[in-house]
Amino acid sequence: MFKNIQVRGRGRVGSAMADRLRERGLLAEGDRDAELVVLCVPDSAIREVARSVPAGPWIAHVSGATPLAALDPHTRRFGVHPLQTFTRSKGAEQLDGAWAAVTAESDDGRARGRWLATQLGLAPFDMTEDRRVLYHAGAAMASNYLVTLFRAASRAVETAGAPPEALLPLMRRTIDNHFELTGPISRGDWTTVEAHLDALRQFAPDLVPMYRALADATAP
Amino acid sequence: MFKNIQVRGRGRVGSAMADRLRERGLLAEGDRDAELVVLCVPDSAIREVARSVPAGPWIAHVSGATPLAALDPHTRRFGVHPLQTFTRSKGAEQLDGAWAAVTAESDDGRARGRWLATQLGLAPFDMTEDRRVLYHAGAAMASNYLVTLFRAASRAVETAGAPPEALLPLMRRTIDNHFELTGPISRGDWTTVEAHLDALRQFAPDLVPMYRALADATAP
Repeated sequence: MFKNIQVRGRGRVGSAMADRLRERGLLAEGDRDAELVVLCVPDSAIREVARSVPAGPWIAHVSGATPLAALDPHTRRFGVHPLQTFTRSKGAEQLDGAWAAVTAESDDGRARGRWLATQLGLAPFDMTEDRRVLYHAGAAMASNYLVTLFRAASRAVETAGAPPEALLPLMRRTIDNHFELTGPISRGDWTTVEAHLDALRQFAPDLVPMYRALADATAP
Repeated sequence: MFKNIQVRGRGRVGSAMADRLRERGLLAEGDRDAELVVLCVPDSAIREVARSVPAGPWIAHVSGATPLAALDPHTRRFGVHPLQTFTRSKGAEQLDGAWAAVTAESDDGRARGRWLATQLGLAPFDMTEDRRVLYHAGAAMASNYLVTLFRAASRAVETAGAPPEALLPLMRRTIDNHFELTGPISRGDWTTVEAHLDALRQFAPDLVPMYRALADATAP
């Protein structure tokens, strides 16, 4: 479908994607002859970089929240957002097993977006422009707020004198158990929830609003 | 240290513990001759069940939040709280690799609690009575609110037309990457955070308070 793909940007995502495309013999080395230019630049830079790309090739971005209109004036365009968190210390293998949201404005664009996702090692699903931000909010909750949750829980546990790494088997198993709810709220034990809030008020008062919002959201 | 251990209660935790002690040849079959009685009953039942146990053997409970005083009138007592979530569809192997908070009022009690944890397959750490509820609040955040987070993220993603199981590789990798924060807040991109809130207001307004509390807690 594309034989020469240029990747602009070598941040966390751009590095992993370029490595994968190189492995597949699909990475355009140098600036010429690319049939597709994939922008792996910060959201705030997409518009400007898109405008700097000469007309001709297809163009794509990998942002979760940015509309395809940011790729103006190009009209042969699509988006492939990997539903994954990337770190600089790992490579293309980070793409394996993850999913990707493909946004397009035509069947041709969608087919090309799905093809790119598959070449990258990602399992594609279609996303519409009008629900894209909602989808991205869900992704941010699942990943970024998982970090927040761990940090908060770690602080409580560590302040209590326990090793925060003891939370890891618990969190992994919660996922492995298909997010089956256990613990006080599952038993309707609001006395324990109130005791937790009292303890947080005493030892980590800034965690109280988050704890309370999550308790409210957990209640049946 | 103990050769005959009785387990009272066969809920999620009691079943797994009894299975493990049976594997080790440590489970007292029948009501007599136990040197240790481990109460694996709901928190609200601990006091009553403890009072029904005849004086003589050591006694323990496996609750995270309940004080040892609930084991009155027994004085040879300790607590071993497995920092793990249990499901009925699995057995003793659920204990392997998890940690346990050991609470005691004497060196002897502590040594016995640590011994029991180790026999069960748990890695023990010491917990004091006065920080126990704080510790348990951390444990509840890490596990129970992880469920809440997944449910909320799933709903957003599903409402946007994406498969919620696509969140699983993302969440597992977030843990594998040692909870390295990525995404809009890590980039100081509050425009995207506001766009998320707008989308949630439109499609899932009940998630707004939780999203906002977590965003506030994530901000540096």
